Amino acid sequence: MAKRFKSRSSSADSPAASPELRLFRIPGIPEIRPGNDLVKCVASAATRAAIHFEDGDILVFAQKIVSKAEGTLVRLASVRPSPEALAIAGRLKKDPRAIEVVFRESRRIVRSDHVLISETRHGFVCANAGVDHSNVPGNDVVTLLPLNPDRSAKKLAAALRKRTHKRIAVIISDTFGRPWRLGLTNVAIGASGVPVLLDLRGSPDRQGKPLTATILAVADELAAAAGLLMGKSEGFPVVLIRGYRFKPVSEPAARIIRPAAEDLFR
Amino acid sequence: MAKRFKSRSSSADSPAASPELRLFRIPGIPEIRPGNDLVKCVASAATRAAIHFEDGDILVFAQKIVSKAEGTLVRLASVRPSPEALAIAGRLKKDPRAIEVVFRESRRIVRSDHVLISETRHGFVCANAGVDHSNVPGNDVVTLLPLNPDRSAKKLAAALRKRTHKRIAVIISDTFGRPWRLGLTNVAIGASGVPVLLDLRGSPDRQGKPLTATILAVADELAAAAGLLMGKSEGFPVVLIRGYRFKPVSEPAARIIRPAAEDLFR
Repeated sequence: MAKRFKSRSSSADSPAASPELRLFRIPGIPEIRPGNDLVKCVASAATRAAIHFEDGDILVFAQKIVSKAEGTLVRLASVRPSPEALAIAGRLKKDPRAIEVVFRESRRIVRSDHVLISETRHGFVCANAGVDHSNVPGNDVVTLLPLNPDRSAKKLAAALRKRTHKRIAVIISDTFGRPWRLGLTNVAIGASGVPVLLDLRGSPDRQGKPLTATILAVADELAAAAGLLMGKSEGFPVVLIRGYRFKPVSEPAARIIRPAAEDLFR
Repeated sequence: MAKRFKSRSSSADSPAASPELRLFRIPGIPEIRPGNDLVKCVASAATRAAIHFEDGDILVFAQKIVSKAEGTLVRLASVRPSPEALAIAGRLKKDPRAIEVVFRESRRIVRSDHVLISETRHGFVCANAGVDHSNVPGNDVVTLLPLNPDRSAKKLAAALRKRTHKRIAVIISDTFGRPWRLGLTNVAIGASGVPVLLDLRGSPDRQGKPLTATILAVADELAAAAGLLMGKSEGFPVVLIRGYRFKPVSEPAARIIRPAAEDLFR
């Protein structure tokens, strides 16, 4: 066996296996500003890179590029922090105006001990309600999450369909932390044209025992896979996933949010 | 622009872009039993599928196949449940012997309201301490997580090196739930030859603001990407990831575990 692996010629003789899944960066996307046609920018960049879309492709957009295109930006100079924001900002050594924006974007503050973790207006539990101040042109501007990321995904998918005449699913991703694991991973905050939760429960296994594997959050796994290619400070904010086989059902990413009644860690 | 997309001939003329990342299933891996040489089985299956390993490849192994090969199995007939296990089993409608095994695998029970969430002997917080009873031959057997998944990954990587003469990184993945998001995603419980936490912090951005994007849990994103191909009840327990660029530093997946002192949700 080891011999066959060492042999270059036998490897060259046998047909190369095809990958099941391929991921492409879309290079050369310009800095996006409010009002820019994001799909036009992405489609042009793809064409320049000789990437031609196909039916069943999935495009994963980093949240920030969607927020910039939609103009969900706040100028901090326009924000007057509340006494609560001033208090927390003092403790966390943050800009009280940014904390005030986090408050406005939040339904509920989950923790404010070392970091500010809140439930966003959408129901996502994440740090700073997704309010971010890096890589935004202007000294004084923060980005918010899109107002309705599932609606944003739906619009992007429709515009892609119109422009490319291909059925392209869309995921909008953001990097969230996890309570018991260090580091961030990309998750889906918006989706269109792709299942978000996949029921893996099947018939009982050979021993007649029910399968315990239940529901896989595939939209989050797709976002995570794309995140591997987005790189430093979203250098590649759009990634194409090709080859993933799925039923073309459209589920909102909001389905992934665990209902409050089932939340054991409120 | 739309015209160029519609034109089949211009697409055929231009060179096709190469994917940055490719994922392959390793088909035809047989049912693994305690004591089987897992690397030999996987390498043989890869050869039959015309998949030839390359330096820099990453092999993601589903936890269960590693546990089976290592024989970390428990026969429930040998387990005498404690009164605590009997009480919780009654409430959760579970086999008290399986609950007893979860207790033995746990440092600490985190929640036992609707599901049993515990901190495993390794420090992972997950449902049922990773104890699983599906897809195990025998009516009465559960699988445990590997005793030391990082050591298992290291051994697999060394055996792969010996057999294939290629530098192949290894991740051992399992599906964990998340407190605020429904569904499971694959995460890394063991790793060898690949970074697990990638520091994305860079120099201040153009506005002189520090980048807030911090540490990406790349081993978890690699596990999640592979999870997309593992399919129903781990039909494909080993997935090859090719094209991911990384410094060949070896970090244990245990580094991802958040220290207790930083855990806001104990």
